[in-house]
Amino acid sequence: GFVKIDHHRQLRRGFAEVVYCAGKTVEQVQKIMEALAKTEKNILGTRATPEMYEAVQDVVPDAEYHQLARLITVQRGEQKQVGNILVACAGTSDLPVAEEAAITAEIMGAKVDRLYDAGVAGIHRLLMNRGKLDAAKVVVVVAGMEGALASVVGGLVDKPVIAVPTSVGYGASFNGLAALLAMLNSCSAGVTVVNIDNGFGAGYAAAMINRMGE
Amino acid sequence: GFVKIDHHRQLRRGFAEVVYCAGKTVEQVQKIMEALAKTEKNILGTRATPEMYEAVQDVVPDAEYHQLARLITVQRGEQKQVGNILVACAGTSDLPVAEEAAITAEIMGAKVDRLYDAGVAGIHRLLMNRGKLDAAKVVVVVAGMEGALASVVGGLVDKPVIAVPTSVGYGASFNGLAALLAMLNSCSAGVTVVNIDNGFGAGYAAAMINRMGE
Amino acid sequence: GFVKIDHHRQLRRGFAEVVYCAGKTVEQVQKIMEALAKTEKNILGTRATPEMYEAVQDVVPDAEYHQLARLITVQRGEQKQVGNILVACAGTSDLPVAEEAAITAEIMGAKVDRLYDAGVAGIHRLLMNRGKLDAAKVVVVVAGMEGALASVVGGLVDKPVIAVPTSVGYGASFNGLAALLAMLNSCSAGVTVVNIDNGFGAGYAAAMINRMGE
Amino acid sequence: GFVKIDHHRQLRRGFAEVVYCAGKTVEQVQKIMEALAKTEKNILGTRATPEMYEAVQDVVPDAEYHQLARLITVQRGEQKQVGNILVACAGTSDLPVAEEAAITAEIMGAKVDRLYDAGVAGIHRLLMNRGKLDAAKVVVVVAGMEGALASVVGGLVDKPVIAVPTSVGYGASFNGLAALLAMLNSCSAGVTVVNIDNGFGAGYAAAMINRMGE
Amino acid sequence: GFVKIDHHRQLRRGFAEVVYCAGKTVEQVQKIMEALAKTEKNILGTRATPEMYEAVQDVVPDAEYHQLARLITVQRGEQKQVGNILVACAGTSDLPVAEEAAITAEIMGAKVDRLYDAGVAGIHRLLMNRGKLDAAKVVVVVAGMEGALASVVGGLVDKPVIAVPTSVGYGASFNGLAALLAMLNSCSAGVTVVNIDNGFGAGYAAAMINRMGE
Amino acid sequence: GFVKIDHHRQLRRGFAEVVYCAGKTVEQVQKIMEALAKTEKNILGTRATPEMYEAVQDVVPDAEYHQLARLITVQRGEQKQVGNILVACAGTSDLPVAEEAAITAEIMGAKVDRLYDAGVAGIHRLLMNRGKLDAAKVVVVVAGMEGALASVVGGLVDKPVIAVPTSVGYGASFNGLAALLAMLNSCSAGVTVVNIDNGFGAGYAAAMINRMGE
Amino acid sequence: GFVKIDHHRQLRRGFAEVVYCAGKTVEQVQKIMEALAKTEKNILGTRATPEMYEAVQDVVPDAEYHQLARLITVQRGEQKQVGNILVACAGTSDLPVAEEAAITAEIMGAKVDRLYDAGVAGIHRLLMNRGKLDAAKVVVVVAGMEGALASVVGGLVDKPVIAVPTSVGYGASFNGLAALLAMLNSCSAGVTVVNIDNGFGAGYAAAMINRMGE
Amino acid sequence: GFVKIDHHRQLRRGFAEVVYCAGKTVEQVQKIMEALAKTEKNILGTRATPEMYEAVQDVVPDAEYHQLARLITVQRGEQKQVGNILVACAGTSDLPVAEEAAITAEIMGAKVDRLYDAGVAGIHRLLMNRGKLDAAKVVVVVAGMEGALASVVGGLVDKPVIAVPTSVGYGASFNGLAALLAMLNSCSAGVTVVNIDNGFGAGYAAAMINRMGE
Ligand SMILES: Nc1ncnc2c1ncn2[C@@H]1O[C@H](COP(=O)(O)O)[C@@H](O)[C@H]1O
Ligand SMILES: Nc1ncnc2c1ncn2[C@@H]1O[C@H](COP(=O)(O)O)[C@@H](O)[C@H]1O
Ligand SMILES: Nc1ncnc2c1ncn2[C@@H]1O[C@H](COP(=O)(O)O)[C@@H](O)[C@H]1O
Ligand SMILES: Nc1ncnc2c1ncn2[C@@H]1O[C@H](COP(=O)(O)O)[C@@H](O)[C@H]1O
Ligand SMILES: [Mg+2]
Ligand SMILES: [Mg+2]
Ligand SMILES: [Mg+2]
Ligand SMILES: [Mg+2]
Ligand SMILES: [Mg+2]
Ligand SMILES: [Mg+2]
Ligand SMILES: [Mg+2]
Ligand SMILES: [Mg+2]
Repeated sequence: GFVKIDHHRQLRRGFAEVVYCAGKTVEQVQKIMEALAKTEKNILGTRATPEMYEAVQDVVPDAEYHQLARLITVQRGEQKQVGNILVACAGTSDLPVAEEAAITAEIMGAKVDRLYDAGVAGIHRLLMNRGKLDAAKVVVVVAGMEGALASVVGGLVDKPVIAVPTSVGYGASFNGLAALLAMLNSCSAGVTVVNIDNGFGAGYAAAMINRMGE
Repeated sequence: GFVKIDHHRQLRRGFAEVVYCAGKTVEQVQKIMEALAKTEKNILGTRATPEMYEAVQDVVPDAEYHQLARLITVQRGEQKQVGNILVACAGTSDLPVAEEAAITAEIMGAKVDRLYDAGVAGIHRLLMNRGKLDAAKVVVVVAGMEGALASVVGGLVDKPVIAVPTSVGYGASFNGLAALLAMLNSCSAGVTVVNIDNGFGAGYAAAMINRMGE
Repeated sequence: GFVKIDHHRQLRRGFAEVVYCAGKTVEQVQKIMEALAKTEKNILGTRATPEMYEAVQDVVPDAEYHQLARLITVQRGEQKQVGNILVACAGTSDLPVAEEAAITAEIMGAKVDRLYDAGVAGIHRLLMNRGKLDAAKVVVVVAGMEGALASVVGGLVDKPVIAVPTSVGYGASFNGLAALLAMLNSCSAGVTVVNIDNGFGAGYAAAMINRMGE
Repeated sequence: GFVKIDHHRQLRRGFAEVVYCAGKTVEQVQKIMEALAKTEKNILGTRATPEMYEAVQDVVPDAEYHQLARLITVQRGEQKQVGNILVACAGTSDLPVAEEAAITAEIMGAKVDRLYDAGVAGIHRLLMNRGKLDAAKVVVVVAGMEGALASVVGGLVDKPVIAVPTSVGYGASFNGLAALLAMLNSCSAGVTVVNIDNGFGAGYAAAMINRMGE
Repeated sequence: GFVKIDHHRQLRRGFAEVVYCAGKTVEQVQKIMEALAKTEKNILGTRATPEMYEAVQDVVPDAEYHQLARLITVQRGEQKQVGNILVACAGTSDLPVAEEAAITAEIMGAKVDRLYDAGVAGIHRLLMNRGKLDAAKVVVVVAGMEGALASVVGGLVDKPVIAVPTSVGYGASFNGLAALLAMLNSCSAGVTVVNIDNGFGAGYAAAMINRMGE
Repeated sequence: GFVKIDHHRQLRRGFAEVVYCAGKTVEQVQKIMEALAKTEKNILGTRATPEMYEAVQDVVPDAEYHQLARLITVQRGEQKQVGNILVACAGTSDLPVAEEAAITAEIMGAKVDRLYDAGVAGIHRLLMNRGKLDAAKVVVVVAGMEGALASVVGGLVDKPVIAVPTSVGYGASFNGLAALLAMLNSCSAGVTVVNIDNGFGAGYAAAMINRMGE
Repeated sequence: GFVKIDHHRQLRRGFAEVVYCAGKTVEQVQKIMEALAKTEKNILGTRATPEMYEAVQDVVPDAEYHQLARLITVQRGEQKQVGNILVACAGTSDLPVAEEAAITAEIMGAKVDRLYDAGVAGIHRLLMNRGKLDAAKVVVVVAGMEGALASVVGGLVDKPVIAVPTSVGYGASFNGLAALLAMLNSCSAGVTVVNIDNGFGAGYAAAMINRMGE
Repeated sequence: GFVKIDHHRQLRRGFAEVVYCAGKTVEQVQKIMEALAKTEKNILGTRATPEMYEAVQDVVPDAEYHQLARLITVQRGEQKQVGNILVACAGTSDLPVAEEAAITAEIMGAKVDRLYDAGVAGIHRLLMNRGKLDAAKVVVVVAGMEGALASVVGGLVDKPVIAVPTSVGYGASFNGLAALLAMLNSCSAGVTVVNIDNGFGAGYAAAMINRMGE
């Protein structure tokens, strides 16, 4: 009763409804995943706790859990991975968001490359990896604090850059607001932005762009 | 002396440096455009006043002015227009930003379709135009006030949506903040966002995505 | 001593004083409810914990508890339920606030219909339920994240819409601020707004409107 | 081309599309009003300048202008005025917003009573006018600065109160934010709120409520 | 070493240094109170936990604890209580802050009267107590949510009113910001404001005013 | 019609209604002042333009204008000036607000002393004037930018300090917000605060305190 | 009367009082500069208009005006210029603030080098000028929009970096807030920040550091 | 894999990479410190918990822990301590941040003096210690609440002042925002600011300045 699963979404949008687990009870997550598992090929649950995963596994035995990324995934059949998305992040603390982006893109059929801990305080770490930037079709940039990595990457490439501000930082970072505003004001054209800590949204958008022309 | 034109940008990023005219004097704009005109094929100046255009025209006779969009453009040789970007906007007051996006994309080689005055207060205007949504490779959604159009469009399509909040509104719109926050929080996956009133940035990003696979 | 119960309120305002339990100790809630139970027919306590309910039940045995809505109610005698209020909500995570609105309206004598999980990311779920919208005298719309549902509903009906932003979301939702601003800036005329998560206030206002002409 | 007039709106919503003139050119306003005048019985343009009115009058000779309220209205045939809406405001500086609410409600068929300059700094002015409060079906409260009038009125009546914060004030009023927050946090149940300075929205919502049971 | 007790303060300011316990360890509080107890007649510790009190009592046996107000006090010799301060508050949840103000004023030698649970949602509770307002030399008004009580009281009296916004509320109260802004914008002249939840500051200032002319 | 003059205010509050001219037309100000002039002994109009003054003078010939303070005053009969209020300000740019405070207090019967341009960047200017601080019954401190003067003065005296933040500054002063927050967080007890640039409110409150015991 | 010139400042702080002209009348600026000119060797007036300069020149004939930087300077005798400060800025629109910093430092005795239009969107412009970075003792970085230049520079050098956010930008730059927050959250250690557009403050601090060890 | 240690940093920036432990797991901190310990002479880990320290000590036996400052340090060989940095703080609650600054500077080779609990509410405590101010080459000022200490110190000295706002306070301190804004708006030239609670950044910048000319 309380849920209306949007079964058309696979058709209309190219991927089944994604479950945002954060505001739900363990029982609600379990029921929704069970229902989706009956009709969908690939399923994704975001912001899932280990406890939620256990409850889901009882009813959907082929569900997998990605602890760092807090994702529950179900992937049925072979998934061809095409294109090339680069997920770059600034520091170790940004890893959970970066992994949420990377795995989301992978389950949607993208080949994903990673370039982690490449913050602007030591810019040679980025410049030494120009090969990775050049090889990508789309770049996802994940950074907290001042979020400067998005502008620097944006200035180096001629491809879409999706910036994800993270809540990493303290004081005047205001839980990611500083990075969000910086990324929205990027002087590098072609940078678009998603919500603070929204690795899922960035991975999803990147995967849609990445499959173009494949 | 005061300007370092980034002549590599055409190579590195696929388009020459774009001039943000807003914070500059008429003379500065004139000089920068003159310098760019000597080496570049296509040139773009954003947020340009009619007065700036006149000064530019004196030294770059083939420059054109798009009043509503506040753009100065120079386009040399035939420009093939490929793909299909739909620029949709919510109300008449959003037109300047929508046109800035559309013309930016056009000068970068995109075919652009327009769907204007299709705000959610009369949602049939959008639903009756599903054909335009279906035909597009990328959609740019321009909306002020509560910015809801981005989520509704995002929920209808399986392609990248770039949302542009505008400063249209008053009171608690806080000069576009309401629309910006709404778009960043869109429950429709695949929506990415640019700065308030940044039609240029949206058009630029859309054009980069649009040329994929062409 | 510490409380001045407003016993005139039933007369003056059509319903007894409602107790906001959140900032009070269990003992304070118990004492206030006990005092109200001596003179009032219907009683309502909002934001009540299960622990508070137990203490109240000891002294007011006919008190009931609505766990999801966090409400304590006392309802004496038959309550005729008139009119028709529709409570619509966007996602599963908005249920507690939606139920707070619905039950508040019911205890004030309203017939209440529910339309849950009908967010704009899959707008057909709303459009397929136009019958519910048409049958209502007043609509309460509960939504977090970008709060777009209020504008879409407001554009479809010719009756009062009361919008309740919820704190569901993260990052730039700023605990409901994004939805609040969106609803205040709704381009659909006739939408009025209450505080973030204030299901009680929306249900109360809806019930006052709903009883007109009955 | 640039406008899609929503001719269904009279049917769907009970009143023709209302034109928000603020973000438009004089020519755009003139054209839209001219188009509406061909098919609609009653028309409303908000935030209109005298200059806009003059342009409209050239093509819609029966248009009227309400200077204080900044409204252009067209009203054809006899309009029966039913019910009773009270528009109360706190100070002289709130008059433009109060009048916008009052005239909007009148053109939608409501009988409107006014109680102006009744701020809480001299609360006897309000208490001496309880008769006006008692006679109303709905009350619109317009106040800037600390917006306290909404709570005081809300505590005195058992009918819907629609609160309109105004941008009157300075310093920490932050252009109406102080009044807006105060009204959203009103401890008087039944108060709902519209955007800062949105007299139109309050009048519109009040008129929809007011015609119930008539 | 880590503390420089300001022993001149009794002379310079008329009251010994007051200890703000919130940011300190139990040991730090104990040591500072012990040092003060050696030279001062009256001592005050604010925001103290029961645990802090126990540690202080070990070294300052005549220290007392006021649980609701979270105050530790030491009062030596007879304290004459002069003048008349009224502490009024809006709801039960504001009691801790109101008591902090009242006891602070008492230890500084003021006679204090209390008028609690007199919020503007039932304004007769205030009007019925005009005698208390008339008898006071200074009024402290404590209120959360929309903070309207300060303006209403300010409009009724010809004496200084010190307003204390509290963090009582939720959503758009933003932890007391709504009440703070409302009080700063009060249209009743003569209202001054202290920090959110700063009962101590209000009691201190009221006591300084109250002893004038005694 | 549009104004309800609060003629009881002299009795109830000790001073006639004060006219806030900023949001009013010249004609409205003229009419209100004319009406007040018929019954009141002393009158005050705040935020008045020279143009408003000219219109008032036509109908109230004994009205005076204080250009720096933007005040219109009418003072009939001898006004004894009692007590001693010190108005201190930080810099030359704060003068208009400081003078608004000083003249407001004077017309309410206070003797006022001034200590201007005594900001904390050169604290000896304040310390060299301890005599003025010691002689005062109440101190009004006016400061923009970081507003530190209030805390320094508050730490030196044992009397009420009323702090007025001003909008002097730029950038992160956010039109006086920085000074406002600083003053609200003053670590010197006994400091109370009024709205940004509200010299009138500070002068009014100071005058009420100042007449105690005279 | 209205000004207390802080003649000790030269001794105490190493430079005469600096006049912030923005909030002052032309006459006030003229008088203060005239007074300073009688006793001081070097004088600085910031945020001065051409009109102010003309009035000053009448009474201080050796005063100079720097239009872009909006500075009035008086420099008497030979000023040796020591050390090496690099002022770097991101774009042409940041020039006024950069020049305010540079000239302030120069009048305080610093040798100043400039590196303008070196924003991170084309990072090679910065990397190609490593020589300038290496030669400096202190670097002042001036940038608006996302302010990323400060972090990139901070990561390349082992010397103090003073970051000046500018109000260049629009929308979510919120008049320099985005750049300010970014700079405060810089992941490059050793970066300190001054107020938005405060070129003067940065130049002053840089000059104090620069003269160490000379 | 997940970390790219920036081994060039010692050369490029004069100090090895500093580890920000707050967003990392105990294992991540342990691994990074272990890797750094193999090549670096001096190491610093900030915001470290006791638990992290224990894990580090297992693999880097010569690591030390500074509980109040939450720092892990490794210091090999004799470290000469040159120059003179004064770290001043306003109250006892600011100690953790002050110590973070002091120890950071010490490990970078600075001699550090401390002046604690010298807030502006008792300004003689500061004035009595002018000797310490005069002896310093650089001053770090740490203060929460209204942050006024930075301006007062800045007005007394002719050397660089680095201001650190702390999150000490409540209500309208907004977790350090009040102090941050105050410090950014300091009217004392030469004050630069770091992020809220960023003792590390201030100590690092001070040490870079302090070694000039040694
Ligand atoms: N981590 C996430 N962040 C933002 N949106 C999400 C996230 N996960 C799922 N969603 C979207 O949220 C909606 C699901 O909401 P619900 O019906 O409450 O599960 C879907 O439209 C998803 O596309
Ligand atoms: N959940 C709620 N949200 C907002 N206001 C409420 C809520 N519950 C009760 N109230 C109002 O809060 C007031 C009760 O406050 P109190 O006297 O502290 O119980 C009454 O005026 C109610 O109308
Ligand atoms: N400059 C001012 N700042 C704040 N309040 C004021 C000011 N001048 C007058 N007032 C108050 O504003 C109210 C007058 O508002 P109005 O009826 O619009 O003239 C009175 O209650 C005055 O006490
Ligand atoms: N552009 C500026 N930005 C910030 N502070 C300044 C500026 N110019 C001067 N000041 C400082 O402001 C004070 C002068 O204020 P005033 O007495 O009003 O002229 C001095 O302490 C200067 O150090
Ligand atoms: Mg790293
Ligand atoms: Mg339209
Ligand atoms: Mg759903
Ligand atoms: Mg009035
Ligand atoms: Mg109550
Ligand atoms: Mg000065
Ligand atoms: Mg450039
Ligand atoms: Mg202390």
